[in-house]
Parts: sequence; C-alpha cells; structure tokens
Amino acid sequence: MSYEGTQQKKLDSIFHPRTIAIIGASRQEGSVGHSLLANIIDSRYQGIAYPVNPKADGILGIKCYPNVLAIPDEIDLAVVMVPARHVASVLEECGKKNIKGAIIISAGFKEIGGKGVELEQNIKDIIQKYDLSLVGPNCLGLINTSPDSSMNATFGTQMPLEGNIAFLSQSGALCVAVLDYAKESNIGFSKFISMGNKAGVNENELLRYLKDDPKTDVILMYLEDLVNGREFMSIAQEITNHPMRPKPILALKAGRTLTGAKAASSHTGSLAGTDSVYDAIFQQSGVIRGNTLEELFDYVKAFSCQPFPSGSNVAIITNSGGPGILATDTCINNGLSVVPFSKNVKKKLRTHLPPSLSLNNPLDLIAEAQEEQYEASLDEILGDDDIHSAIVILTPTAFTHVEDIARAIVASWKKHEKPVLCCFLGVYDVSRGIDILEDNNIPTYRFPESAARVLAEMTHFSWWLKRPRTGIKKYKVDKPAAENIIKQAQREGRTFLLEQEAYEILKVYGFPVIKSKLTDSIKAAQEASEEIGYPVVMKIASPDVIHKFDFGGVFLNIRTPAEVKKAYNTIRKNVLEKNPKARIKGILVEEMAKDGKEIILGVNHDPQFGPILMFGLGGIYVEALEDVSFRLAPVNELTASRMITTTKTYKILDGYRGGPVYDLKAVEDCIKRLSQLAVDFDEIKELDINPLIVYEKGKGCTIVDARIILRD
Amino acid sequence: MSYEGTQQKKLDSIFHPRTIAIIGASRQEGSVGHSLLANIIDSRYQGIAYPVNPKADGILGIKCYPNVLAIPDEIDLAVVMVPARHVASVLEECGKKNIKGAIIISAGFKEIGGKGVELEQNIKDIIQKYDLSLVGPNCLGLINTSPDSSMNATFGTQMPLEGNIAFLSQSGALCVAVLDYAKESNIGFSKFISMGNKAGVNENELLRYLKDDPKTDVILMYLEDLVNGREFMSIAQEITNHPMRPKPILALKAGRTLTGAKAASSHTGSLAGTDSVYDAIFQQSGVIRGNTLEELFDYVKAFSCQPFPSGSNVAIITNSGGPGILATDTCINNGLSVVPFSKNVKKKLRTHLPPSLSLNNPLDLIAEAQEEQYEASLDEILGDDDIHSAIVILTPTAFTHVEDIARAIVASWKKHEKPVLCCFLGVYDVSRGIDILEDNNIPTYRFPESAARVLAEMTHFSWWLKRPRTGIKKYKVDKPAAENIIKQAQREGRTFLLEQEAYEILKVYGFPVIKSKLTDSIKAAQEASEEIGYPVVMKIASPDVIHKFDFGGVFLNIRTPAEVKKAYNTIRKNVLEKNPKARIKGILVEEMAKDGKEIILGVNHDPQFGPILMFGLGGIYVEALEDVSFRLAPVNELTASRMITTTKTYKILDGYRGGPVYDLKAVEDCIKRLSQLAVDFDEIKELDINPLIVYEKGKGCTIVDARIILRD
Repeated sequence: MSYEGTQQKKLDSIFHPRTIAIIGASRQEGSVGHSLLANIIDSRYQGIAYPVNPKADGILGIKCYPNVLAIPDEIDLAVVMVPARHVASVLEECGKKNIKGAIIISAGFKEIGGKGVELEQNIKDIIQKYDLSLVGPNCLGLINTSPDSSMNATFGTQMPLEGNIAFLSQSGALCVAVLDYAKESNIGFSKFISMGNKAGVNENELLRYLKDDPKTDVILMYLEDLVNGREFMSIAQEITNHPMRPKPILALKAGRTLTGAKAASSHTGSLAGTDSVYDAIFQQSGVIRGNTLEELFDYVKAFSCQPFPSGSNVAIITNSGGPGILATDTCINNGLSVVPFSKNVKKKLRTHLPPSLSLNNPLDLIAEAQEEQYEASLDEILGDDDIHSAIVILTPTAFTHVEDIARAIVASWKKHEKPVLCCFLGVYDVSRGIDILEDNNIPTYRFPESAARVLAEMTHFSWWLKRPRTGIKKYKVDKPAAENIIKQAQREGRTFLLEQEAYEILKVYGFPVIKSKLTDSIKAAQEASEEIGYPVVMKIASPDVIHKFDFGGVFLNIRTPAEVKKAYNTIRKNVLEKNPKARIKGILVEEMAKDGKEIILGVNHDPQFGPILMFGLGGIYVEALEDVSFRLAPVNELTASRMITTTKTYKILDGYRGGPVYDLKAVEDCIKRLSQLAVDFDEIKELDINPLIVYEKGKGCTIVDARIILRD
Repeated sequence: MSYEGTQQKKLDSIFHPRTIAIIGASRQEGSVGHSLLANIIDSRYQGIAYPVNPKADGILGIKCYPNVLAIPDEIDLAVVMVPARHVASVLEECGKKNIKGAIIISAGFKEIGGKGVELEQNIKDIIQKYDLSLVGPNCLGLINTSPDSSMNATFGTQMPLEGNIAFLSQSGALCVAVLDYAKESNIGFSKFISMGNKAGVNENELLRYLKDDPKTDVILMYLEDLVNGREFMSIAQEITNHPMRPKPILALKAGRTLTGAKAASSHTGSLAGTDSVYDAIFQQSGVIRGNTLEELFDYVKAFSCQPFPSGSNVAIITNSGGPGILATDTCINNGLSVVPFSKNVKKKLRTHLPPSLSLNNPLDLIAEAQEEQYEASLDEILGDDDIHSAIVILTPTAFTHVEDIARAIVASWKKHEKPVLCCFLGVYDVSRGIDILEDNNIPTYRFPESAARVLAEMTHFSWWLKRPRTGIKKYKVDKPAAENIIKQAQREGRTFLLEQEAYEILKVYGFPVIKSKLTDSIKAAQEASEEIGYPVVMKIASPDVIHKFDFGGVFLNIRTPAEVKKAYNTIRKNVLEKNPKARIKGILVEEMAKDGKEIILGVNHDPQFGPILMFGLGGIYVEALEDVSFRLAPVNELTASRMITTTKTYKILDGYRGGPVYDLKAVEDCIKRLSQLAVDFDEIKELDINPLIVYEKGKGCTIVDARIILRD
C-alpha cells in the first residue's frame, strides 16, 4: 500500500470508526461530555459508542467504563473531553489500547500560551509514539453524515443534512454558525471537521483525504494560517485540477489586514504583508478566496449543485426592472457579459411573448409574466450556444403563480447543461417557490447582486478548469558559475552582492543584462567606455554602498573621455565624503540603455513559504497604488504570463490608447528565468531587478540595475 | 404662506388624507382593486374610504359610488386603478370634484412607450390644469404608518411596523422586497412611497416634505434616475446638513454599468459614463450610496437607531477568535482603526477579567465569557474617550447565557452615547438574545463583516456632519474680457478656441498661465523668444489643428534664434503637409516650464447636470487606472480640496516616501477658479488644462497647455 493509501486508512479511523470511546462522557445535562454523547446517539450512529467516566455506571442508558483499557472490545476512535491536564495520560491509555484515531475537544493548550504550549507538546509526543491520528485539541469535533456512519461527534450543534460539501474550519465558533446557516438554507454536508489547534491532523492531510472521498464534491475552508503553504498548494492543485473529478475549494482566510493578522497569530510583526502571499497561493492552486463569510455561503450553494458555465455570457430574465438592473450591474462589474440576444433567439422569443415586450438582455417579462413566459424564454435562451448561464428573477404580484413558475424554471433548466441561479424577492410570498427550486438543486438568493456575484465566481472557476496546462520551463544555465559568485561572497562574510556580481549571476542565467565593465582606473574606464560605446553610465562598486544614487555614486549620459574622467573622480569623492570607510572595488561602466517602459522584478524569501516572485511596472504611481503581483516560485508558463496580465496597469504594456505594444514575451522569459534562479538558490533573501527596461514587441528588454542580498 | 409651505400642504393631501376615493375598487378577490381597498381597511385607516365602481353597490361591506362626482362628501385623495385608457377621464372628474391628491396605480403609460407616452402626457396636462399632486402612474402606492393616519394605500403588501425610516422607491418590485425584508428584521417605517413614473410628484418634492416630517429620521431611496440632479443636491444637502436635525439619506442608484444604465433608461448611449456624476452628486450632498440592496438594509438598521460615532476608533469584543478577526479585517479595510486599548483601560479591564486573558483589541473574552465579563468590558471600553464605537460578537456555547449577555450589552450601551453594533452568530440559539437587543435599538447582524462595514459608513456620515462648513470662493475676475473672446469665436462660427484665446480667458480668470506670445513672422518669434527668455516652446496656432503634437506642430526646448527660425519653418511645413487647407493664425512662442508634477484639470458640460469639474494626476498610469475625481460646479472650498485628496494617487503629491510635498493650495485655487469660470460660461462644452505643472509647496503651479471647446 502506498504512503498515501496508508494515510487514507489512518484517517478512516476518524471518519468511519466502527467503535468510539467517549472519554469524559457526563451525566450532567448541558455539559460538553453530555451533549457530545447525546449527539452521537441522536445522530443514529451506525457503530457502537462506549462512554468512559470513572464516576458513572451508565449515561443516557448506555453502559459506562472507568477507562478505555477497561473496554472489552476494540476501539477505533477516542473522543476526549477531560480537562487539559489529564489529556496526556488519557491519550497514553488510548495508545496502549491500540486506538488509531482521537479527537481532543478539550481546550487549554497552545491557544492559552505558557503551560498550554507544554501540554500540547506532550500530546504531540504521545501521538507520534503511538502513531495516532489526532484532530484538535481545542475543537468542536467532527461529523460524517454518510448513512453508513451517521456520526455527529460534536457538542452543541445539530446533525446537518447529508450533502456533498466538506467543511474544514480553524474556528469552532464559525463551525456552529455555518451549521446553523446551512440548516436554514437547506445546505447539506458530507464531512464536517473542526480542526482546532491542528496538533495532529492538519488541513493538508484532510484535503488529501477529501480528494478521494466519493461523498464530497465541494470543499469549504475557514483558515487562519496554513501549516505548510507549498504542500497546501500542491494538494489543492491536485484537487482543483483533477482530470476526472475536479472539486472546487472555497476558502475564507482571516487576517487580511495587519491588525487582523496579528489577532490571528502570536507571531506579531513577522506576518506583515504576507496576505498577498496567501492570495498568490490560492490563485496558483485554483482555490477561490471569499471576502466574507456570507460570500462563501453564497458560493457554496451554487458550486455544490450547478454545472459550471462554459463561457461568460449571461442572460438575465426578470419580471421587474429594478432587480434586473441591479443584477446586470453586478454581472458586468465582475467580468461577465450581459450580451444582446441573437436574431435567432429574438425570433423564437417573439413567438412566445407579447409584441409590446422589448427583447433586451436583461429580459423584462413585466409583472404579468406567468409560467408559460418564464419556461419558454428560459428554454429558448439556454438553447442558444452563445448564452452560457442565466439568472432568473421573480418579484411576484398577487396574481403570480409562484410555484408554477418555479416548476417551469426547473423544467427548462433540466433540458440544458447550463447553470441557472434564481432570485425570488419577497420572503413571505415566495417561500414555496424557493423550496421547489432548492429541492431541485437550483440555488436561490435573496438579493439579485448575490446571484450575479456567485455566477461570476463560477465562471472564474470554469476558466481555471479550462485553462491551458503549462509546465515549468527549464532553461540551460550555468548554475556552477552563479554558485561560485555566491560562495565567494559568503566566504568574504558579505550578504550584499556587488552589482557586477549580481549582473554576472543574471547573465549566466540567460537574462539580458546591459553591457558593463568594472574598471579600476580612469584609463580603464575610458577604454571600457570606448568599447561599450558612448553615451555610458558610471556607478560606484562598493560593498558598503547599497543606495548608490543617494551617495552621488551614479552618473548618467556620459559622452566623452573627459566626462568619464570627471565622473570617475567625482564619484569616488562623493562616496568617500559620505562614508570615508567605504571599500571601493572600482567604478562600473555601463551602456546607457535606450528609453523604454520600466518594469520591476523581484524575489523575496518568505520565512514560511520560501521564494516569492514579484512583478510590477516601474514608477511612483504603481508603487503608490500597490499594483504588483506575487507568485510563489517556481511558476509555470501560464502563471508567468498571468503575473503580468493580472496587474491593473497591464493594459499600458499592451497598446493602450494606440500606444506601443511592448515585448511581453521577453518579460515573461525573465520571470521564468527568475523563477528558476530563485528555486536553485535558496540562499537568496532579496533580489531586485529595478528597472528592467522593456522595448516594443520583438525588441526585447534589458536589465539596467540589479541588487542581490543573501540570507544570513 | 411660503411656496414651500404650500407645497407641504399639497402633499398632506397624499400623506394625511381625511378621505380617500378608491377608484377601481373591486369585489374580485386577489385583484389590485380589491387588495388595495382591503389593505386600507385592514390597516385601520383613521379617515374614511369611499370605494368607486359603477358596477358594484358595496365592496367589503362599504357603500360604493358610481364615480367620484357622486360622492356626497369632500375627498382629499383619489387612488386610481382603472385601465390606463380610462385614467384621464377619471382624473378629469377628480379635478372637477376639487380633489387635491391622487395616486395612479395603473400601469400602461410611459414605461411601455408609444401610445403610453401620449396617455402620460394627457395626465400631466390634467394635473397641471387642476393643480393636483400626483403619485405614479405605474406604482405600488403609498403608506403612512403614523397612528393618526394609519394608511396602507398599496396593493399586495402588508402594513409595516411604525418606525422612523421613510422609503422612496422607483421600483415597485423592490418596494415589496423591502417591506418583506423589513418585517423579518423588525425594521419599521414612517412613510413608504412607490414613485412609479414620477409624472407628478418626484423625489425632490418628496424629500422636501420628508425634511420637515417629524416622524422621519432616516431616508432610504431606490433610484434609477434623478429628474433634476442639481435640485436634488440642494435639497439633499439641506437635509443632511440640517443644523438641528440632520437626517441621513441612504440611496441605491441602479445602472452603475453602461449596460445597466441602458436597461434603466431608453436614452441608450447618452448616459454613458455618467455614473461618476451620480457619485459626485451623492458625495457633494452627503448622501450615502450603497453598492447593493443588502448593504442598504444593513445600513438602515443602524442609522435609524444608533448615535453616530465621534471618531474612527472601534473596539471589538468577542468570545471567539475567528469572527473577531473577520470584523477587524473589515473595519481596517474600510478606514476604521482597531486601536490598542490604553493603559488605563487595560488596568480597569484587568480587574474584571481572568489574568490569563490577553487585553488586545479585538478583545477575546474566550468561550467561557458570561454577562459579567461582557458588561464590564463594554462599560470600561465605552467609557474611554479614545474609543468611539464598539462591535460586540457572541458565538454561544451550551453554557452561554445568551439573553443575559444581551441584556448586559443593552445596560452598558445605555450608559454611553456611543454606537454599539452586534453580531450574534448561530440563528437558532441566539434568537431570543437578538430580540432583546433589537427591542432595545441595538442592531444585530448575521455576519461580523456586515457590522464592521455598517460602522464604517456611520463613521463616514459622522465626518460629513462634522466637516468644516466652507463657502464658495468668489474671485475678482475680468468676466467681460472672457466673454468677448468667446463671443468673437462664436461670431466666426468657431466652437474650438485657439490656444492663445484659451490662455487669455484663463489669465483674466486669474490662473497662472505660462508666458507666451502669438507671433506671425520669424523675426517676431525671435523677438518674443528673447523677451520670454530661452529655452522656449513653439506651437502652431490654427483653428484647424486640434491635436498639435500629432501634426508635428510643437517644438520643445528651443535654445537659440537659429533654432527658432528652423522650428518656425518646420512647424508651418509639417502642418501644411498634413492639412494643406489649415488656416495658420501664427506660431505661439511659450516659456519652457520647469519640471514639476503634471496635473489634469477639466470641465465637461453634462447635458443633464451642467458643468462637471475633473481633477487627476497626469500620466498614462492614472489614466489607465481611471483615478480621477469629479464634482459638479460650483464647488465650495472643502470640496475643491477633497477633489484632490480623494484620488488614490493623492499621496504622491503629499511627500510620498520622502518625496516632495507639492503646492496643493495652488492647485485648489485653480480648481475653485475653474469652478467659477464653468458656472459663468454655460457655453463651455469642454475645457482641458493638461498639463497644469505643480511645483513644491509655496512655489505655485503653471498651465502649459489648454483647450476650450464651446457648445454648438
């Protein structure tokens, strides 16, 4: 059996236990130990539950044992609810009893700091010793709605409906909220896992399990951190990319802002700004990130039961203007197209609809519309190849046959493999209609804008599924040469590479670096200038000068040997004035690059996630607007291209307002080489190429300044 | 009695009628004519209702009349539900009967085009003839919940609770949806008006009425257009600015996108891009614009019953981490500050809370928290002058005393004049707690992010209330001189002013225009260059050349008399090559401006709203990102300043990253002068100052290019 298969089997002891020991079961109504046992019994658990409590003979009519070792039968899963200080010894007993799965509900561990951290470490040691699969501690528990298990091993919440959504949550409170909301909205779940402190099982193992879970079609997550971002990416990609059965992953990651992140983590400060890294992780693995809890709920309702649209053209059918307009605005603002109907569709619609009706999209059937108009319109519209999805809105009058219209929508929808989302406004009059729709897997939303937003996100996921699959380009480079330069600097105790060294590394990795030469005398500088060709740029080369411009260490547009001489002397003088101890390695003579569009590329080594690539246009505006894109290295070909196209300023590179089209292929090539370099050299802490000057299409690009800083 | 008083009185016949004729009342259950009469009776209307129907003797036990003229008593209001083609004759009778108010429910007018437009015009003629106040046609009706009226003159919806919110809607369907939602959320209304086609009474008259309505504290609007944007602004400002009793106006304006706007209007095309004008109108009048229907509902719940925060510091109190983090993220992303608690507050909190608890903001009281902890924490926190508002979150466990905690929150809140918004997660367990809170005027939200967003909007409104009140600066200018230039161009049949003419107009309005001279010979150009001082710029002056650069009609950085000669000849040659018929008025010699930051100012004459001012930084990035601000002229001093500071790129002008602080006062001065110019000359269709070069603080700014186009 493969490693993965073994892991799978291990988690079965948690998700499909044949027997459960409920350690800390209690006779006291309302207590956690009582509620959890009652939930297991009330959920009609298909296995056998063994309450454990040394002070009781029986609880809820079930025989009780003083400890797990006293149970005469084999136990698959232990649910532990004793006070934190007793958990370790209880777990030790579980190990001895050869129990393979455990859920620790009890709180009082890492989350309270101090002694709690120690207690949690003890637990980690024990689960390793006995090879236990552990959920928690500090969690709400776990639910499996599958009829062959039917297990609600949580406290304080009711068993949800059976469904095809798995939910992983890092917050117990949100678990309860989700279950309550789900019940109200007729949302069903396959599995439900409150992960707590993640001392044992974490999101990555759970995702791996859910990937192959036949009962799960959609995965919903609430996260405050990721234990291993790169592993997460790889598993998430396997899931959303699956050739036969891709499953969408919808995630809410708390801590978008710095204060929020601080609240989410004790590592204050160190997480600053990493939210864009989470964005990158989600984007690179096809995970849909919700902005709010509500958005996530809205998404899951449709993702769990509707096909994905094959394109972005949406039809809106309504019987009242206002809500139709609101849906239209939201569709368009989220990248969908509310296209005019084709002549053919209009001709067909005309046969069903009164002549006074305008056949626009949104299609306003006006207040009098009944089931015939809804069914025929939706049917004709969905039958058109150029329409990929529909939003159907109903605001009933006293004469509207709400239920018949709902049935008509279902009937039309069933004939076409296209997503249909509904908005029936007016909760009192339309509830029966909503029930009909939702019983038939057509999600309804209270607000037209919500339906539109959800449809947009489904379309985005559909793009993800259909995107061209590209590999990671592997360039032939002279890695040993780069290695030598880095080792040399390390030997000299330097973390800051000279510009010439940075250039050299980039050159051996095939980047287009500006012609340059390091010189150590006026004569050498003059000769280098001749060789390179005037005009030239001259720059200080010193390990003690990072900000060359501020030191007066750069001169541009030097046109004659006399000017070279003057610049040579002035640069030395300027630098030594600012820092008399600066070690001057020479003066770098560089070709003066032609004007083009300035671009910034970078690598940053994130302590948690490793090398992160950055792309942005140069200039103070882009900086002020923070219009840059990040991705984790390595990037595949499509991602390299999307790093450019997903910035807001991208259009400036692509013939904006009749302007030039720049050589984006050349920039992509640099991004992919940078990706390879970043992965090859984990030692690089920061690498800035600023600017990379890009020219018109076919004319390439040139690096005219680079900076590399190594990790300590 | 003043005009306004008379108008007020007229609308009383609609809002407070002592008698109502229900024309088209029907015995047929479910029909509009039956529902409306039933609603009037069921709402316990305090006046007398007279059904009118020639085919019935009595309806719902009430004596029926064949027509209004047959009613023996005086009638204040007629509600008309007869088919569209009969409405005019019915209205004629109402006029003869001396009825002063009418509501036409019937549809089939302007909204269907063709003959409907004609029918609507007939109605307009009749209401003018008889001085009738008319609501509709094509509307749902009107509600007044005041106990002395208690009138539900709508069909198909129940009477809402009495409350302090007035709702105006341009969509009948949304009226019903709003009433249904409101009922579920315990939201009460003072007045409720479905405006329909606005053939008679429109939003401006209604706002004027509501301004003085003692029962109304908040005004909610759903709009698809404004009949008179400038009148709307002035009335809305009076309302939101009222010195004694400002009332917030919350508006949802449909048609944000072009397709949406087209769906909202038959004037396809002409409305393109005017959504930013609506934004300007709302911003200049203190109206809060919601993005979605749901947002609007969320806002109104708090605006109607909570005080406004006096600052942007918010405290978040929760008993579980996750929701607290989500609220924190949303607060910060919407401009609020989740500040650390002061030492003093921490000291006080410590006396109430267990020592293991971290005293951060968000304050996590952990799962065990009960009413004592909530009450004491909230009380201490609200007692601190540096905290201006609070969000309280509860996710109960089985042991949580939800109702007691709700009462504790109410008790703390009552002691302080600060807004408190709640989020109790988990609808089943917390409903009793929510009832207690809402009965005591503390709004609750299902999602923590919603509460945070609402609080942010309340804080924005509070800024509006407390903003410095500034007037419109009136500059001493030479208006007749500008008038002469414009008249001269008009006499010559030109709509495009020469650059020199545009400069002249700007100069007499006190703008800092670059030194320049129009010349008609090489010699004159050389003399002008000497006079202005080298280097100079030379530009073609021709009414037939709008895009001077594209014609090769501009030379920069001219340094010698020889260069002047060469430029003079080349410009003429270039222009005549491109357009042999171009009338050349001469060559403009201009001072070469020093480098600074480029800014664009503009005026556009909107056909509906008049002169609109535009401000933006120059450069392709700002253009590509559409980071510009619009305001309707005239602008007061604060608005001129905010036109600059509300752009995203503003920070670049204000010492971004140690860069220069530019002379914003000088730019503001230009905006205010431009406002005066735009108001003085309605003839100006477009005016572009591009660029205005601004220098460092105290060093002013200079116009180096300007273009004026007059209306035909």
